[in-house]
Amino acid sequence: MDLKIKIAEITEMESRFRAQFINSLSGFKSANLVGTVDGKGRENLSIISSCFHLGADPALMGFIVRPHSVPRHTLENILETEYFSINHVNKEIVKNAHQTSARYEKEESEFFHCGLTPKYEEDFKAPFVEESKIKIGLKKEDVIKLKNKTELVIGTVELVILPESSLTKDGFVDIEKSETICVSGLDSYHDTSKIFRLSYAKKGKNLDELID
Amino acid sequence: MDLKIKIAEITEMESRFRAQFINSLSGFKSANLVGTVDGKGRENLSIISSCFHLGADPALMGFIVRPHSVPRHTLENILETEYFSINHVNKEIVKNAHQTSARYEKEESEFFHCGLTPKYEEDFKAPFVEESKIKIGLKKEDVIKLKNKTELVIGTVELVILPESSLTKDGFVDIEKSETICVSGLDSYHDTSKIFRLSYAKKGKNLDELID
Repeated sequence: MDLKIKIAEITEMESRFRAQFINSLSGFKSANLVGTVDGKGRENLSIISSCFHLGADPALMGFIVRPHSVPRHTLENILETEYFSINHVNKEIVKNAHQTSARYEKEESEFFHCGLTPKYEEDFKAPFVEESKIKIGLKKEDVIKLKNKTELVIGTVELVILPESSLTKDGFVDIEKSETICVSGLDSYHDTSKIFRLSYAKKGKNLDELID
Repeated sequence: MDLKIKIAEITEMESRFRAQFINSLSGFKSANLVGTVDGKGRENLSIISSCFHLGADPALMGFIVRPHSVPRHTLENILETEYFSINHVNKEIVKNAHQTSARYEKEESEFFHCGLTPKYEEDFKAPFVEESKIKIGLKKEDVIKLKNKTELVIGTVELVILPESSLTKDGFVDIEKSETICVSGLDSYHDTSKIFRLSYAKKGKNLDELID
């Protein structure tokens, strides 16, 4: 049996119910930790599920900061120091990553309180997460305020650190092999198993399953 | 062994290699089909992997249209008729969904050419995908041009159709139960298996695994 839920019913939902419901609708989401530091050296780490690809040339990624949400410290640090890291959440650190969504003071490092290790790379200001297998260093390119007071943070990819074994010959990164996990809704974490890779789609041509 | 790839090396990559590489970095992505129709009744269907949650109150979702990409017809239709549908890709329709990324003319319906069925709901202009188990009807709220010529399309959720069995008591939608799949990179499709849901994180409090 299908339910058909209209906008009037969504508006009437109890707010936590609605947050769970609407957060589930976009499909599976990426699970990343954003690492930043402020001008005084105070580190911040925050889980985000809204990181997305924006372009390959130049290489750009974006993520959303919602008003009054925990990643506000992240945004403040990015505005102050311009650099941030995006670190894939893998199966071993799911609970540590989820714990970063608690409200810590700016003086408190989520790295310390959530059992993760800050790691610095030469010529890059923001801390990476040592336990993360795929780490991306970005420089702020733009911050755009959207109508509902969320902010879209856009960064240029300056550095990528990944296991050599995850990079395949055509450039595809096998993030499943690196045990990257995904999220649905606000709090549900999922492992993946590959179905297949498919060939570039052309009109009137059958798709092939690609063999790595 | 870890690779450290710097911006200069990314810039030097062969363009298809770079597209595969950078598209892999954000983590797992949602797999959705956007259904639209133009003023003449010509339907369009296009797979997107950039759909994301933007807010629950009001309920907003966004997705990215890249310059010169196949979803241009989608954007033209949304600008003309204001409505679009977001339909989760499930395991049974992965190849049909991927095939919508081929370049079809505006006169050609991807529904027909890719073996999917347009379905209309009362009081909603845009077609849904009958084979999709979770279907969302949206009205255009905003279209924002970003610096790299991509466009961010934002819509208000007006209608949600989903199996009654997927809606849990706290509002979370079990999209895994509805066989929603996810994508990585440009062409890799993945099934999921749930690890756990975690309780709301609070400072100094252990996380609980939630039982549905």
